[in-house]
Amino acid sequence: MTRRKPTVRNTVVELGEGADRRHEDRLATEEPLEVRLAWPGAPARRVWVTMRTPGHDFELAAGWVVHEGLASAVGTIAYCTDADLTEDERFNVVTVTLAELPLRDPAHRHTASSAGSSACGVCGKDSIAEALAAPASARWAKPHAEPDVVRRLPGLVRAQQPVFERTGGVHAAALATADGEVLVVREDVGRHNAVDKVTGARVLEGLSPAEACLVVSGRAGFELVQKAVAAGVGALVAVGAPTSLAVDLAARAGVGLYGFTSAERTVRYA
Amino acid sequence: MTRRKPTVRNTVVELGEGADRRHEDRLATEEPLEVRLAWPGAPARRVWVTMRTPGHDFELAAGWVVHEGLASAVGTIAYCTDADLTEDERFNVVTVTLAELPLRDPAHRHTASSAGSSACGVCGKDSIAEALAAPASARWAKPHAEPDVVRRLPGLVRAQQPVFERTGGVHAAALATADGEVLVVREDVGRHNAVDKVTGARVLEGLSPAEACLVVSGRAGFELVQKAVAAGVGALVAVGAPTSLAVDLAARAGVGLYGFTSAERTVRYA
Repeated sequence: MTRRKPTVRNTVVELGEGADRRHEDRLATEEPLEVRLAWPGAPARRVWVTMRTPGHDFELAAGWVVHEGLASAVGTIAYCTDADLTEDERFNVVTVTLAELPLRDPAHRHTASSAGSSACGVCGKDSIAEALAAPASARWAKPHAEPDVVRRLPGLVRAQQPVFERTGGVHAAALATADGEVLVVREDVGRHNAVDKVTGARVLEGLSPAEACLVVSGRAGFELVQKAVAAGVGALVAVGAPTSLAVDLAARAGVGLYGFTSAERTVRYA
Repeated sequence: MTRRKPTVRNTVVELGEGADRRHEDRLATEEPLEVRLAWPGAPARRVWVTMRTPGHDFELAAGWVVHEGLASAVGTIAYCTDADLTEDERFNVVTVTLAELPLRDPAHRHTASSAGSSACGVCGKDSIAEALAAPASARWAKPHAEPDVVRRLPGLVRAQQPVFERTGGVHAAALATADGEVLVVREDVGRHNAVDKVTGARVLEGLSPAEACLVVSGRAGFELVQKAVAAGVGALVAVGAPTSLAVDLAARAGVGLYGFTSAERTVRYA
């Protein structure tokens, strides 16, 4: 039984000004993951299919369940053992079993006929009102971050991105304390997945710093602020730009929002 | 009745080494869009909700319908006139009416209970097999592109990104001919949306160059190659990295795939 690695080798042709150059390259692995949810008295049902970079799959599933407001903790998590799946496929199906009933009906968003295709992360939410609703969450952190700590964070995270180092093709997310200690860094081809993995790591490892912020290697859209609110962090620090709706939601939820963050500067939006 | 603009003004605080600097900034607008689909004998039904940057909404809806394999052409497209929506909300709902029956049942993917949250673009596809299936499409272009043309494309596209220029916060996609003429450039906070808008522009304006490629300002994941295949273009040119599954699908579908493309070099993956 083989588990897919986060990178794969590939032969490519580099086409510059001079002669073509054939060489070996590394690609970020992208594979589908199906997440199933079960709870006492209920058989496992499929709740999500995503493309992701293999690695930290349990954290991805757990963090997604928390960000979706389905549970604040998980019972057990396991790869699938269905007899009708190939060995490879079994590592692409994860079942999350809750110890208690889910906090909401996982089927209640079940009206969009095809949810695919946007990188925004709200696909599948079945109404505009729902897409705009901030998740209800107990805040476990204050929106506190010193500017010099904020400016230091992307560099600290960047130093812990082995898959990006080899492929240049994945995003990262991290959880850091208010004094700049990076607690966990996760990578994925999907930038929202990387944030799910970070929250999953926190939930599975029981991390709960009194003050913390979420750091993302890309831009900060609405859905990432939604995840930050659901995760209860005090601030979201992005290397890229925020969007209009991200700023609106952060202001409404009392989450600090920093964009265009580098060693030299950061811009506070909310 | 006011239509949202693609950028909005915002007052921000820049926190550098020196004194804090308060100034006005521009953000990329992010708003939800609900797409409804109707055809002869069938009332309009919601088929997709996405976050997007307002502008070229009809193209976004039309391109998405084509990329999803629901139709190869659209009849009429209109903003919603529901009496129960506010004037602002009417510009966030688009109804696509087909002149004929859809090519597949828009409801057949309707089994995932919550499809939300991944930037990968396959959320909502209700099985791994379906996520991996390449869309069936009549190819309208050959996979032909000269390396010097490929290397020139990102710069040509970059010169036509007004929203990025003002906000630094959106992706772009473009359709270009095999001799390097850029036919259409579209921007969006969602990189998959930008590609939907480009194909929508092609469909609505009847563009059909004999040889063409799709250019994207970011990375090339599986879902973007899927869209390139559905759109029938010969090649996908990305500024960023491709993923493992993107390379697999491009090779299988006979679509040229170029990554890490700049004026100096490009890397051919398939």
